[in-house]
Amino acid sequence: MTYCVAINVEEGLVLLSDTRTNAGMDNISRFTKMFTWEVPGERAIALMTAGNLSITQSIIARLGEDLNRDQSGDPAETILNAPTLYRAAELVGQRMREEQTTNGDAIEARGASAGASIILAGQRRGGVPRVFLIYSAGNFIETTRDTSFFQIGEHKYGKPILDRMVHPKLSLQDAVKSALVSMDSTIQSNLSVGMPLDLALIPRDHYGFSLRRRIAPGDSDYLRLSLGWSDSLRQAFTELPEYPIL
Amino acid sequence: MTYCVAINVEEGLVLLSDTRTNAGMDNISRFTKMFTWEVPGERAIALMTAGNLSITQSIIARLGEDLNRDQSGDPAETILNAPTLYRAAELVGQRMREEQTTNGDAIEARGASAGASIILAGQRRGGVPRVFLIYSAGNFIETTRDTSFFQIGEHKYGKPILDRMVHPKLSLQDAVKSALVSMDSTIQSNLSVGMPLDLALIPRDHYGFSLRRRIAPGDSDYLRLSLGWSDSLRQAFTELPEYPIL
Repeated sequence: MTYCVAINVEEGLVLLSDTRTNAGMDNISRFTKMFTWEVPGERAIALMTAGNLSITQSIIARLGEDLNRDQSGDPAETILNAPTLYRAAELVGQRMREEQTTNGDAIEARGASAGASIILAGQRRGGVPRVFLIYSAGNFIETTRDTSFFQIGEHKYGKPILDRMVHPKLSLQDAVKSALVSMDSTIQSNLSVGMPLDLALIPRDHYGFSLRRRIAPGDSDYLRLSLGWSDSLRQAFTELPEYPIL
Repeated sequence: MTYCVAINVEEGLVLLSDTRTNAGMDNISRFTKMFTWEVPGERAIALMTAGNLSITQSIIARLGEDLNRDQSGDPAETILNAPTLYRAAELVGQRMREEQTTNGDAIEARGASAGASIILAGQRRGGVPRVFLIYSAGNFIETTRDTSFFQIGEHKYGKPILDRMVHPKLSLQDAVKSALVSMDSTIQSNLSVGMPLDLALIPRDHYGFSLRRRIAPGDSDYLRLSLGWSDSLRQAFTELPEYPIL
């Protein structure tokens, strides 16, 4: 499986994804699920993918072909030159629909799932930071002030902490902490989500990535957070009032 | 959906279930999912059910018919007179298989899920406290010292806290706290799991229930625990070391 989360707070965008992919229990591989593009000072966009890997890889490849074509002088509409991020999400949705039409039906006919979902997050000069969640049908939704994070993949384990902590006024630093704690809870409880992680930050009105980091299994900052959270939880649990059972 | 959890610690058994059932989003009902029987000083047994309600209700009804028949002088093998709890789990498994054969295929043919699962927990005089998880096929597994809890229904939200806290030497009191915190995390994050709750305790070598409580939405002890946990989590989160992003 996969776990990816995008948080949209007033200070900017936090993106975090794992790298574990599996086709059955005995076929586990490592694939990055985060793809980033930027025109520094103009636009930063990240995609995170979950679901059928052949579908999502093809979508990323097609989007890349459009970018290459455009850069080599053959004008094409791309996620980097689309007038709005909404239009960029539409372009991704179109590619999703094409892939599902070309390959999805054949995959499902063989009993496998072709389901896929993609988070698009970014900001362009002249716009605000936005996060979209694109479904298998190519349709999509966007974060609002009421719901300021999206998750794809194995989202349930890490949802309680986000439900409690994330709100639009959370600092970027605390949004990073929330995402990492949410990921850590997922990794602890589900074998199909695993290290290393990819973390990226798009601060508001920076129009670029202030951080793109691969967090390796031995990353000391991550370990300190993970162990600290375990200790804190245990401490919080101990101090919790008892429920009377007598 | 449903969320039920059974924890098997050295001091005894903790059972907790919610009461929300839904057939689609707009058809939400309240059904207890915990069923208890005891012969005080001899045997205590609880069943908790998840999945297709028509299947699980039929199983409970059939098991009850066996008990009634036996009590009215027509000897029958029942979960209360079975020589071991293992045999009691087999009886439940048999009923599950019968229901799946009689109704399950017809249900699935109409595109609905007939899947169901049942937790059986209890202790008989002469035996140890045991917890079984019975699947749709009637087969089952039992807790061990390595895995001392089982969950059915919406299990993912509440798993991280159990993974971190539950071990065989946990006190019965703390096992209750773990179950309630796990339930609270699930209720906060998933609309299909809801109050009131059913809580039951079978202390080791008590051969009976020391507690069977319906926890209503306004239960002040539960609210104190729920609010206390929210506060503690927030506090723990605040004190957590920051992940460097500069």
